[in-house]
Amino acid sequence: MAGEFTFIDWIRGRTPASDRVLIGPGDDCAALTPGNAPLLITTDMLMDGTDFVLADVGAHRVGRKAMAVNLSDIAAMAGRPVGVVVSVALPILPPPTLRGRGQNLAQELYLGLREMADAFGVPIVGGDTNSWAGPLVISVTAFGEAERPVRRNGAKPGDWLFVTGPLGGSIRGHHLDFTPRIREALALRDAVELHAMIDVSDGLSADLHHILEESRCGAVLVAEAIPVNEGVTLANALGDGEDFELVFAVSPAEGEKLLRAPPVPVWKIGECVASGYWIEEQKNRRPLVPTGWVHQL
Amino acid sequence: MAGEFTFIDWIRGRTPASDRVLIGPGDDCAALTPGNAPLLITTDMLMDGTDFVLADVGAHRVGRKAMAVNLSDIAAMAGRPVGVVVSVALPILPPPTLRGRGQNLAQELYLGLREMADAFGVPIVGGDTNSWAGPLVISVTAFGEAERPVRRNGAKPGDWLFVTGPLGGSIRGHHLDFTPRIREALALRDAVELHAMIDVSDGLSADLHHILEESRCGAVLVAEAIPVNEGVTLANALGDGEDFELVFAVSPAEGEKLLRAPPVPVWKIGECVASGYWIEEQKNRRPLVPTGWVHQL
Repeated sequence: MAGEFTFIDWIRGRTPASDRVLIGPGDDCAALTPGNAPLLITTDMLMDGTDFVLADVGAHRVGRKAMAVNLSDIAAMAGRPVGVVVSVALPILPPPTLRGRGQNLAQELYLGLREMADAFGVPIVGGDTNSWAGPLVISVTAFGEAERPVRRNGAKPGDWLFVTGPLGGSIRGHHLDFTPRIREALALRDAVELHAMIDVSDGLSADLHHILEESRCGAVLVAEAIPVNEGVTLANALGDGEDFELVFAVSPAEGEKLLRAPPVPVWKIGECVASGYWIEEQKNRRPLVPTGWVHQL
Repeated sequence: MAGEFTFIDWIRGRTPASDRVLIGPGDDCAALTPGNAPLLITTDMLMDGTDFVLADVGAHRVGRKAMAVNLSDIAAMAGRPVGVVVSVALPILPPPTLRGRGQNLAQELYLGLREMADAFGVPIVGGDTNSWAGPLVISVTAFGEAERPVRRNGAKPGDWLFVTGPLGGSIRGHHLDFTPRIREALALRDAVELHAMIDVSDGLSADLHHILEESRCGAVLVAEAIPVNEGVTLANALGDGEDFELVFAVSPAEGEKLLRAPPVPVWKIGECVASGYWIEEQKNRRPLVPTGWVHQL
């Protein structure tokens, strides 16, 4: 991380004090004081034209999203975020609609990152700033802590399945402007024993399938119980992705407890079974195919 | 990091066991067991056409370099590396000379990353794999530990300045094939009290200048004492960059000790002074301008 410039100088000047930051931006590495809990690490790279269209949305919302998708992964393990680093490849020539604001691109990007990080008190402890002739690329790596990280592999047949919010249609703006469910995850962790959890990035049907694969069990979803955003269909809710709500599994007893006194809004959407992947609509059961974003080379 | 595919599956299958890895690739976050020492974090992004030319060097050497530059930053703080995460944007259309090897690009990249990580027993604990229509971009974030991280700001007037190897001309291949000075840094840390250290990425004159700025002192280098690679000039040694040797400052007493019994090869190249930045050639002192890579927007 040697020799960063403007972007890091911003970070250096503006990152709020954190008692965990031993060494901030400006050295070859940042340093955090050691913690007592397991250290969570996640990284996500976003590229112009794939994860956002810079010319349409502007750099502020890109920065915000890049930070939020990483914090969402910390939330998915029920972690507390403790710091992030950011690397960027800034376009020398910003898209036509941003011309004249080229000098501000780094600043707007930074302010978007900062806005989301500040919302959760997370210091940006370092980064690597580059410019090139290509499109904007931003990679954030986030660190968190969790005494007992909630994994994908702990769901059991009979478990109840919940989601923290309505799904579908995120392309209309939610995929840029969502709030990662950090607070919700911590509240749920405090209230019940979470067997398995994931954030909805690829789409409900695909992400829940990740849980089922890792947990070696199946599930039946109840179509009428899945909260769907206004103006979109059940198919959108199952397949669109980038909702960044949490899907999680708990025992029936813990599920009852949640329904009686939910610490945050939750919707029961189905139950785990021994095998298979199904959706019930008006009591008719049909196989559920994990649609949504399928990662491929 | 939800939903990765081939690249992560490789990592999952091939990353050597480490007693620090609590949760490896495949969940939303990786998790490391908590350590007792401060946690070092560094990140560096490399882009095709800027940091390497993929069509010329191939993906294996790119992976190797992306890993090595990050480990070099851990070395610069005298840290032990404990893990890395990798995010990549793979070109859908590889450069013409790599056509037909397109499917192997991710694999070759991974093998290069792995070769360098294995050399230091560092597990790749997670990542984010993407493909797009743009050129190859790779961002590595490395974690390390150091009981007492060596910073840039501890040099004092009178300190002796050392370098761990010859400099200049790295563009001929060394910038791709260097070995990060992890072992050297740890051996030096065990042998003497290091006041300040940095790795030479921007160029000796520029990187030493970073130390002087942070330490608020000056330096006089001795031209004849600077080890220069065969076939290049002193100007190359001062300005070329990407040598990835370590430059460090110690007290004169510790410097004497190093010269008597060097734990690793070192060259004394000058001394710190109260202010100014100079180079002496045949006893003639002239101002030294930090040339080399100057980061700018």
